[in-house]
Formats: sequence, structure tokens, C-alpha cells
Amino acid sequence: MIETVSTARAHGGTQGVYRHRSAATGTDMTFSVFVPDHAPGARLPVVWYLSGLTCTHANVTEKGEYRRACAELGLIFVAPDTSPRGEGVPDDPAGAYDFGLGAGFYVDATQPPFDRHYRLWSYVTDELPALVAEAFPIDTTRQSITGHSMGGHGALTVGLRFPERFRAVSAFAPIVAPSQVPWGQKALGGYLGEDCAAWRRHDAVALIEDGARVKALLVDQGDADSFLAEQLRPELLADACEKAGIPLTLRMQPGYDHSYYFISTFLADHLAWHAERLR
Amino acid sequence: MIETVSTARAHGGTQGVYRHRSAATGTDMTFSVFVPDHAPGARLPVVWYLSGLTCTHANVTEKGEYRRACAELGLIFVAPDTSPRGEGVPDDPAGAYDFGLGAGFYVDATQPPFDRHYRLWSYVTDELPALVAEAFPIDTTRQSITGHSMGGHGALTVGLRFPERFRAVSAFAPIVAPSQVPWGQKALGGYLGEDCAAWRRHDAVALIEDGARVKALLVDQGDADSFLAEQLRPELLADACEKAGIPLTLRMQPGYDHSYYFISTFLADHLAWHAERLR
Repeated sequence: MIETVSTARAHGGTQGVYRHRSAATGTDMTFSVFVPDHAPGARLPVVWYLSGLTCTHANVTEKGEYRRACAELGLIFVAPDTSPRGEGVPDDPAGAYDFGLGAGFYVDATQPPFDRHYRLWSYVTDELPALVAEAFPIDTTRQSITGHSMGGHGALTVGLRFPERFRAVSAFAPIVAPSQVPWGQKALGGYLGEDCAAWRRHDAVALIEDGARVKALLVDQGDADSFLAEQLRPELLADACEKAGIPLTLRMQPGYDHSYYFISTFLADHLAWHAERLR
Repeated sequence: MIETVSTARAHGGTQGVYRHRSAATGTDMTFSVFVPDHAPGARLPVVWYLSGLTCTHANVTEKGEYRRACAELGLIFVAPDTSPRGEGVPDDPAGAYDFGLGAGFYVDATQPPFDRHYRLWSYVTDELPALVAEAFPIDTTRQSITGHSMGGHGALTVGLRFPERFRAVSAFAPIVAPSQVPWGQKALGGYLGEDCAAWRRHDAVALIEDGARVKALLVDQGDADSFLAEQLRPELLADACEKAGIPLTLRMQPGYDHSYYFISTFLADHLAWHAERLR
């Protein structure tokens, strides 16, 4: 059961925000969907967008500047939340922004007390896809995925593990190798404990080393991004893709930072790139 | 003296947020400016955007989706705040959203206690234009103005009273006749008292009746806007323009509401329309 929080007409389509009770997380979850106007009975390709640390569905919905391109290209755009929320959901013990609320890292936690609600992997790969496929006019044979920062990590790992489902994968300033950077080490340790095999299943570079492949990969990265050298390290992805023969287009964007000013500048480009692969 | 709050690269230009001490309002004021990349020494036309009730510069800056069009068209985009803010600035006695903070209505208040700080007319027509003309590469012979709701009222009244400065005027869901609607009656009464002549100088329909003219006028209005019938009443503007021979293009947009989903859908259209008139 999906509850409509709001809908508004925008760019010749409908931008909706919806809420439902999630079995995966055991909480209410909110997400947004943009559906361009379309012929009755038509089913449209879909682009999934996974958000970064501290975000909800609302950041990209308000600041992403994707609706015009989606309307022109005939793409549905789905933006989930980044963590469970609500009463009884544990947060980072110190209230840090990079773990707990707003920082689910797209894994199914195995470590108490997070294992009960922090099940974003199941949520974005299983429960939510089934729900939106039923409620919206999605052509499930034409899906692709993108995301930002922590959500870029999510898009890469989801795309690498479901290569038959997603025709293309892109990302903005993704965390490409969480096992090797502070954000990822804290999150994977906190949610998954010391299980090295589990870490590798949630690390794009490790997945590629272990044989996972995607058909096409586009990454934009601002060179004025303050997280570039310590947390993002796109060169690790470039190396892994080169060794694996994955066609990666990595665009270093001069002067751009980590914000939605960066994302909104290039998101329409990504959508056009996805649309070509979703024809 | 302008203090830079932040700058970010976006859509091949620079989105900045700035703060300065305003002589007009006696407070610090914050505003945003987008400057597209341009040849050294070049001066660019500018579009002023006046925001609506409850907004600061940030709403349109984050949600307006104007940067791509401004970059393509070579337009500078300036977004002021809607009221004075800070210690000692009086608000609506009941804390209502439609008077006081976030609701300056682009007038110079004459009524205590508002007359000391609520001087948005002087601010947006005099002080801020001089400041930005000095600090940014603006061609002051090529200016136009637009705005939303209360800011549409501002754009219309400023444009009508400075027809030599602004080559074109447009608005989104403007309050066209504040003297005749509840929002306007409360604001004009509260800021200007019972001075009927002063009210007429801040009422677009009255200004047109009293002989003011603009060269070109474009208005978009959503027909699902919940404020349409009581507060906005675009038919009053259409009547006044028809009688005065002002070329008004009034576009009723089916299904659109009063939000930034509406504005962001059509703002690029307005910018293209302004750019034609700013050549």
C-alpha cells in the first residue's frame, strides 16, 4: 500500500512523493517518483537515483534539475531515502552524519542494533522495485541506475550485482572503494562487522576484481570536491575497470565541488546517456 | 562591502551567495548572483528575480532551475531576500507568514515599528542595483525583472515605475492588485497605513490605471494554484492591460500549482523571452 504524500505537475509530468510501510526496514519509508506524460497504457524506462550521506528523497527532488530531461526523454525517475527513520531506529552513537540516519550505505546490516532496520540493500534491490513496478507505468526490462557519493557507491554495487536488470550504470562523485576509505570502513564495519566477504560484496572495486561486470559506466567527478582524495578516489575505479575491460567514461569536471550545484549541472547529461542505452 | 558567503561552479558559471550591510534596511542582507562564464571585460545583461512570501534568496537559487538557461543565454541572475532579518527586526505580531519576516512586499514602510527596517523598495530599486553593478559584470543598459507571487507583485510594480531601466517584465502567479486582495490589504495597510496614494504606487493594476506602462509583459499562472481566485486574480491585470494597450501574454498553465515545481518548469521560458528583449 502506497500513500501519496504530495503530487505536483512539473515539466509536463507528475512529481510525486509517496510513503509506505516497508517490510525490509520495518519502518515507514518515503520516496519520490517523476512520471512524464505518456500515452495511455505505455510503459516507460526508469532511472533509479540513490542519494548520498545526509540526504532524503527530497534533496534530488528539489535540487536535481532532472525533470526537464526526463520529460524530454520519456524517463521515469525514482529516488528512495537513504536510511530507515522513525521511532526505535538507532543512529550513530555520536550522532555523526556518516553513519546511522541518512547513511544506510545500501547494505543489509548484520550487526546489532542496526540489523533490525538498516536493510537498504533489500529495500532498493527487492522491495521498492516490486512496489513501484506495480504502482507506476514502468517497463521493467528497461532500467538503469545512478547515484551520488554514498549513493554512487550504491548505484555501482547494485549495478554490478544485477547486470541483467540494469542496462547502464552511472555515478556522481561515487565512493568507489569503501573498504579502502574512512567513510566506507566506518560504515561497513558498523553494519557488517569484520566479515571480509560481505565487505567485498559492497565495494565496487572489489566486486570488479572478483569478476562482476557492467555493460556501460559513466562517472562524473568534480576536481574541486573536498572529499576527492580521501574518500572518493576514482583512480581506483579507473584501474579496476581497465584491468577488467569495463568501458568506463570518467569525466573530471574542473572547478566543480560535491554539491547539488555539481549534480544538477550534469544530471541531464547522464539521463541522455542512460536513455540511449534504454531504447 | 560585499562578503562572499559561498560560491560554487554550476552549469558553466558561478553561483554565489553574498552578504552586505544594507543602509536601506539597517540590517545585513543576503542575496545570490549567478554569473555565466564570459569573455574577459564583457558585460552581460541581468535578470532580477524577486521571491515570494516566506522565501529567502535560497528558494529560487536551489529550486529554480535557471542556471542552465542563464548560461546558454549569457544572463546574470540576481535574487534578493524578501525582508530585513536579524535582531531588532519586528515581525508580524501573530507570527503570520504573510507579513513581517519573509514578507516585505517590496515597499518602504511608513508605519512604526516597520518603518525603520522594512525598506525593500529602496533596497531592490536603488541600493542593491548600485552594489551589484559595481561588483559584477553587469551591462546596466540591459536589465529586466521577474518574480513569483509577492515577488511577481514586486516585479510588476518595479517594472512599471522604472520603464526605462527594465526592457521587459514577467511574473509567475503574481499578486496583480494587492489593494483588492487579502494578502495585499494586510501588507499595504500594515506597512503604509491608510495612505491611498501610496497603495496605488504599489499596486500594478492601479499603476496601469494611473498611466504607467511597460514595453512587454509575460505572466504564467497555474490553474491549480490554490491562491488563484482569492489572492492573485490575473483577470484584473488582463483587463487593465487591455484598456491600456499593454501587450500582455498571460498563459494559464493547466494543472500547475503555486510551488517551485511550477516556477522551475517555466523559468527557462521566461529567461529566453527576456534574453530576446535584452539583445
